[in-house]
Amino acid sequence: MSRSAETPEKLQEYRRSIDNFDAALVFLLAERFKVTQKVGVYKAQTGLPPADPGREDQQIARLRALAADAGLDPEFSEKFLRFIIDEVIRHHSASGARG
Amino acid sequence: MSRSAETPEKLQEYRRSIDNFDAALVFLLAERFKVTQKVGVYKAQTGLPPADPGREDQQIARLRALAADAGLDPEFSEKFLRFIIDEVIRHHSASGARG
Repeated sequence: MSRSAETPEKLQEYRRSIDNFDAALVFLLAERFKVTQKVGVYKAQTGLPPADPGREDQQIARLRALAADAGLDPEFSEKFLRFIIDEVIRHHSASGARG
Repeated sequence: MSRSAETPEKLQEYRRSIDNFDAALVFLLAERFKVTQKVGVYKAQTGLPPADPGREDQQIARLRALAADAGLDPEFSEKFLRFIIDEVIRHHSASGARG
């Protein structure tokens, strides 16, 4: 953190927390993608269709409710889920399954 | 989970894990935004500039390294950080600070 000499202590403290949250988020995402990868393999092996719109609707409704509980904008939680699902689709477009 | 009767047990198991990870991600994001909100207020109060390109470069470099360690695509970790920062900017465009 080469700029810390110029950065007020209070701001440094906030940034240390942000950095910790970002590390936790990245590690959780890595584990989440391991599971969707397994889902992709499983669906390909069993001939299940890659997309399941009912499942996706459930995920969105559930995340929006959790977000509201947590004080996070439900719109953002839905955008976030779509962002993640887009990445899953990108990863698994070859096997054609997305979880 | 109204469709569980039609969903194979293996797939249900994967989905329960995905749902747990998504809940954890949403709760962490809620906490992360609390901190960036404080950063926004702090910067507005102290007259610090809203953007800090050096800080952002550090965050990207750090997250890419963490992602590589965790087996996550570094490109995705960078896209993810930008997605989050865009939301912070959207939240705090009024106060003009982003952390």
